[in-house]
Amino acid sequence: MRLLSSLTPLGQHFRFRLRIAISFQSHNFPRLFTMASSEESLRNTLSQKQSAVDAQANAVRALKAAKAAKAEIDAAIEALNGLKIEKASIEKKLQAVVTGAGGDGALNRESFRQAVNNTLERRLFYIPSFKIYRGVAGLYDYGPPGCAVKSNVLAFWRQHFVLEENMLEVDCPCVTPEAVLKASGHVDKFTDLMVKDEKTGTCYRADHLLKDFCNEKLQKDLSISSEKAAEFKHVLAIMDDLSAEQLGAKIKEYGIVAPDTKNPLSDPYPFNLMFQTSIGPSGLLPGYMRPETAQGIFVNFKDLYYYNGNKLPFAAAQIGQAFRNEISPRQGLLRVREFTLAEIEHFVDPEDKSHPKFTDVANLEFLMFPREEQMSGKSARIIPLGEAVAKGTVNNETLGYFIGRVYLFLTRLGIDKNRLRFRQHLANEMAHYAADCWDAEIESSYGWIECVGIADRSAYDLHAHTEKSGVPLVAHEKFAEPREVEKLVIAPVKKELGLAFKGSQKNVVEALEAMKEKEALEMKANLESNGEVEFYVCTLGKNVLIKKSMVAISKEKKKEHQRVFTPSVIEPSFGIGRIIYCLFEHSYYMRPSKGGDEQLNVFRFPPLVAPIKCTVFPLVQNEQYEQVAKVISKSLTLSGISHKIDITGTSIGKRYARTDELGVPFAITVDSTSSVTIRERDSKDQIRVSVDEAASVVKDVTDGLRTWENVWSTFPHHASATAED
Amino acid sequence: MRLLSSLTPLGQHFRFRLRIAISFQSHNFPRLFTMASSEESLRNTLSQKQSAVDAQANAVRALKAAKAAKAEIDAAIEALNGLKIEKASIEKKLQAVVTGAGGDGALNRESFRQAVNNTLERRLFYIPSFKIYRGVAGLYDYGPPGCAVKSNVLAFWRQHFVLEENMLEVDCPCVTPEAVLKASGHVDKFTDLMVKDEKTGTCYRADHLLKDFCNEKLQKDLSISSEKAAEFKHVLAIMDDLSAEQLGAKIKEYGIVAPDTKNPLSDPYPFNLMFQTSIGPSGLLPGYMRPETAQGIFVNFKDLYYYNGNKLPFAAAQIGQAFRNEISPRQGLLRVREFTLAEIEHFVDPEDKSHPKFTDVANLEFLMFPREEQMSGKSARIIPLGEAVAKGTVNNETLGYFIGRVYLFLTRLGIDKNRLRFRQHLANEMAHYAADCWDAEIESSYGWIECVGIADRSAYDLHAHTEKSGVPLVAHEKFAEPREVEKLVIAPVKKELGLAFKGSQKNVVEALEAMKEKEALEMKANLESNGEVEFYVCTLGKNVLIKKSMVAISKEKKKEHQRVFTPSVIEPSFGIGRIIYCLFEHSYYMRPSKGGDEQLNVFRFPPLVAPIKCTVFPLVQNEQYEQVAKVISKSLTLSGISHKIDITGTSIGKRYARTDELGVPFAITVDSTSSVTIRERDSKDQIRVSVDEAASVVKDVTDGLRTWENVWSTFPHHASATAED
Repeated sequence: MRLLSSLTPLGQHFRFRLRIAISFQSHNFPRLFTMASSEESLRNTLSQKQSAVDAQANAVRALKAAKAAKAEIDAAIEALNGLKIEKASIEKKLQAVVTGAGGDGALNRESFRQAVNNTLERRLFYIPSFKIYRGVAGLYDYGPPGCAVKSNVLAFWRQHFVLEENMLEVDCPCVTPEAVLKASGHVDKFTDLMVKDEKTGTCYRADHLLKDFCNEKLQKDLSISSEKAAEFKHVLAIMDDLSAEQLGAKIKEYGIVAPDTKNPLSDPYPFNLMFQTSIGPSGLLPGYMRPETAQGIFVNFKDLYYYNGNKLPFAAAQIGQAFRNEISPRQGLLRVREFTLAEIEHFVDPEDKSHPKFTDVANLEFLMFPREEQMSGKSARIIPLGEAVAKGTVNNETLGYFIGRVYLFLTRLGIDKNRLRFRQHLANEMAHYAADCWDAEIESSYGWIECVGIADRSAYDLHAHTEKSGVPLVAHEKFAEPREVEKLVIAPVKKELGLAFKGSQKNVVEALEAMKEKEALEMKANLESNGEVEFYVCTLGKNVLIKKSMVAISKEKKKEHQRVFTPSVIEPSFGIGRIIYCLFEHSYYMRPSKGGDEQLNVFRFPPLVAPIKCTVFPLVQNEQYEQVAKVISKSLTLSGISHKIDITGTSIGKRYARTDELGVPFAITVDSTSSVTIRERDSKDQIRVSVDEAASVVKDVTDGLRTWENVWSTFPHHASATAED
Repeated sequence: MRLLSSLTPLGQHFRFRLRIAISFQSHNFPRLFTMASSEESLRNTLSQKQSAVDAQANAVRALKAAKAAKAEIDAAIEALNGLKIEKASIEKKLQAVVTGAGGDGALNRESFRQAVNNTLERRLFYIPSFKIYRGVAGLYDYGPPGCAVKSNVLAFWRQHFVLEENMLEVDCPCVTPEAVLKASGHVDKFTDLMVKDEKTGTCYRADHLLKDFCNEKLQKDLSISSEKAAEFKHVLAIMDDLSAEQLGAKIKEYGIVAPDTKNPLSDPYPFNLMFQTSIGPSGLLPGYMRPETAQGIFVNFKDLYYYNGNKLPFAAAQIGQAFRNEISPRQGLLRVREFTLAEIEHFVDPEDKSHPKFTDVANLEFLMFPREEQMSGKSARIIPLGEAVAKGTVNNETLGYFIGRVYLFLTRLGIDKNRLRFRQHLANEMAHYAADCWDAEIESSYGWIECVGIADRSAYDLHAHTEKSGVPLVAHEKFAEPREVEKLVIAPVKKELGLAFKGSQKNVVEALEAMKEKEALEMKANLESNGEVEFYVCTLGKNVLIKKSMVAISKEKKKEHQRVFTPSVIEPSFGIGRIIYCLFEHSYYMRPSKGGDEQLNVFRFPPLVAPIKCTVFPLVQNEQYEQVAKVISKSLTLSGISHKIDITGTSIGKRYARTDELGVPFAITVDSTSSVTIRERDSKDQIRVSVDEAASVVKDVTDGLRTWENVWSTFPHHASATAED
């Protein structure tokens, strides 16, 4: 079973946006709720077998009590043992099913993760931050190779999105005043539910405890009935939708206590996940470390629109740090308190979401997981993007275009296309204002991880900031010639309304003015025929009686010279750290050393992301070879190829192993003063080239101007045995 | 007068480090304290002339009172008017001197700055952050062209420093736990002195108010005596050294009040400049937004040293956001609350600070401003770097190497070498532990701005973290063969000490063990001759009597296999935002439009930093030309040249003006389907090249493979008149 529900999206980014929309009611979640049939039948068989064991044990006891013949008793015991063996076998099968696909899958995933992470930490891809002060949960440094990979990924992101699409990149501060995040909804709603150990005050995320409890039961306690198992799975599936009260009730019902102390827990209450601070010395201007970079773009919409010549569509982009004060970070590098986001806000006319370059990506095919497939319990399947948009599975061309571009971005980085899928948000996952939303999910040892969210957020964000700031964030479409339009005019007669409703007059006026066209025309008809009509004012929570004298409703013809509208925004949002971590897992493999006595670690990074592109090894420590190495190094520098010379006397095999572990794609070994070998990391193939050519061959392959296969067929091969030792 | 003292270095970064060391006493600061002689003599002349005017006015009044003859009175009035005219003329001269070199220098600087900043804001190089919510002082966004410039500067920094020197780049979080910043000294000492309006509570930086008062007096009040003027200048010069009490006393003495309300002010008190927050939900783990990136490197020293094969020297580098909660940010883009730092920590054996590549930079010559020149009131002068190091002006080769590399970095970005100087810290400016410190200062409209600090900080930082974390941050030098060393051994006899000092025993033991060699050997001699000795225990604040039986002091010979030591660190620290702002000022100029009727703005960015490298203009709106433009655009994209097509029907002259304002170096105008023109921004020279060649010519000049002069002499010229209109 894939624990999808345990993986919340890109930090709280989507979780929050999602929470705004979610109605807190139980609902079906067929994809996860449906128990795999093999598991259900195994649980049933196991429970029958247990009954059989119990019955047979009673039978043995009865025979003994009745002092039956030894042969008879022995036969009964033998039968009992047989049943026990059968039961154990079923237990083993069930254990395999509940802990992951195919036997000890979970165990494999766990040990695979351990192997990757050991290599990553040993080679300083990551370092737990402030380690000498015992670190801080959820904070990690990128060490030298990690930092190089990150900067390569970001450079490629800029190339692939910003430059390719002429996006307007901006760079806004992390420190953000409260007003901005109040408008965006973060101050009020960017929360997780927390419980406290009632005696020690230790804090826990409430849903984590409930989740752990259910998973523990499902995975470790094989004796639970299939009904109970189904219940726990249901709870896991709807976890994100539970209100504080519902979560608290479940925690009480299951008797969940503080994991460290077994003390009772407080009721769940919301904890805001933003790091709070204070701007300036007065203490009067509260601020937060931004939880996402998007808001910096939205508040600049007016200037950016002007910069773009007052034309739509255009996209703005931002790369930067974002912060979330997680209650108790888990999942290592996937759930951190500070991380790099790369976000795009593509502003588009809501009436025209076509994209001129959609044809460039329409023929791509990849794993998609539309809403319907999820609801009907099916799996993700390969769908041509053009078809998905044509059939309306993907809401519009622009959204489709970005899905395609994200696919190209991730696979070019080295993400395995078979472990990448685009999953559409279910209706209940999506914010009420969102038109459509797809997550690029990458499969890792933790399950499917949401790494990129691609959402059509309609006009929500610009609306919110327009309202709170008073600055209209709108676009204009000038008509070639003025158009005559019929406009609904609702004119409440304030004097009459004031007399009738006194203090509530304002609520009634606002409700009248807010009527949609259909409703207003119905009221007009009713007033004309009956002279009065019942009207529900939601801010008063009751009906009022509107008379004909109180409001004039009419349709008037007007000449309009332009259309003023709030643009829709389509937002691809990239969790860079998550992508990099998944990339590490997808790139990692082990292979036996030459002697076969140890397993060597390799990262198969494409040159694009490799922390350095090439190493230069003088075969033995000698002045001449080192001189050649320096000459080659100089040409590599001139060609802009990052590289490193290793003149240690270590065996060449060990030096190869060392750089394979860093994912360096090519190694140049200097074993003569005229020609050298170039070794490719994954095939371990080696060619001989002249000293003069070495740098340019590496450059060509690194820059993608030629393939290794092409190089391999051009140059003489080098017997690997020589150099590998 | 250059208001150097009003420009504090790179935010509080250096200021703080400097404060640790400064002794708070008045001292001479000759460079600033010495009043320019012309000013002094003008003040004296003015004051004499004023006396003459007063005397003559009295004479006139006396004549009138005495009813003297009209001719006599008229003559006296004429003489008075003559004196007044002479006085006005002196005033004008003095005004010119005090407000800046050469007449209305300050005014010029002010209006120049206004012109640059108008262009920068209009073209969205910068945007005041959160503008629609009225912004926040000290927070700015980089808009699209500013963001592109910034990312070019950072890419070049990475190329020029990290890749060139094989530095270990790391990327640490901004959120930092208190322990780290306690150890570094920031929690206790990273403060500015603040005063509050006693009625409204508005906060001000105390030194700002005093500084404003002195400057105002010096510049606006021409009647003050030259003694008083000298006093104000002295105060300005020693401002940074004043204690809270001294600052408060001056504020009282001068009767300085709150500028907005004229209310009285509180006494000055320290305000910590770090943004404070809380990590995790418990509220028990205080954290801060890092005030510099350096600490992230220091705490990782052990891992980085290991990563480097346990070898010195090596350098680590980090680019990232840093935060300072300024009391009241001024100086626009130079003093902000969040900014990007790029810092290098080069770790080196304190016994060998030579640098293998120093010869590469030894021949560079540029403006240097050594301590002696500053103390003796001289100016910065051009000194060959090799000479500065050879003569010991610059402490060591490694420091010198980085000074040279910084010079190359800044000038290649486009910083004017005549407005760049390296100023050595005065003895009282430098931290006590620092061996030497030089600031790269760039002259801008605000005066000389410290943009890069290059300091030899000795072992201070690693020592501090070793002490607080308990993890030894040290390096090892293995000896080829063991060395015999004499070691001082101090062995307190605890039993005897315990009997003698009881509860104070521990203090005495620690004091004994802490003795330096000289002191210990003196004690040994005294004990041997007298049997006892008075010994000052500072933690007890008194002398105690040490007897011979209480301590054994000896020198022992030991074999040592390695030397264990704390490396020195040489730290070049770059304020990226300040460098970029100065670069904008140095790159900006105005030139008349073709018709001469308006002034056009130009940024003469080198291609390296230009936000985009090239624009493509179809001369007129037509299908064919747009097609050619698209073909060229495609080749430019393939060559990795960032560019933009402008197909608006605007006149070509206007389109040139528009891109000149963004500093785009080249413009390709499509005026036929076979060949096009390429225009260079500053010369406005145009050449004709074939459509096929256009992209590669631009690429070659952009990448520095050929110069514009070379291109100009190769291709046919195009009469500029045609295309400019």
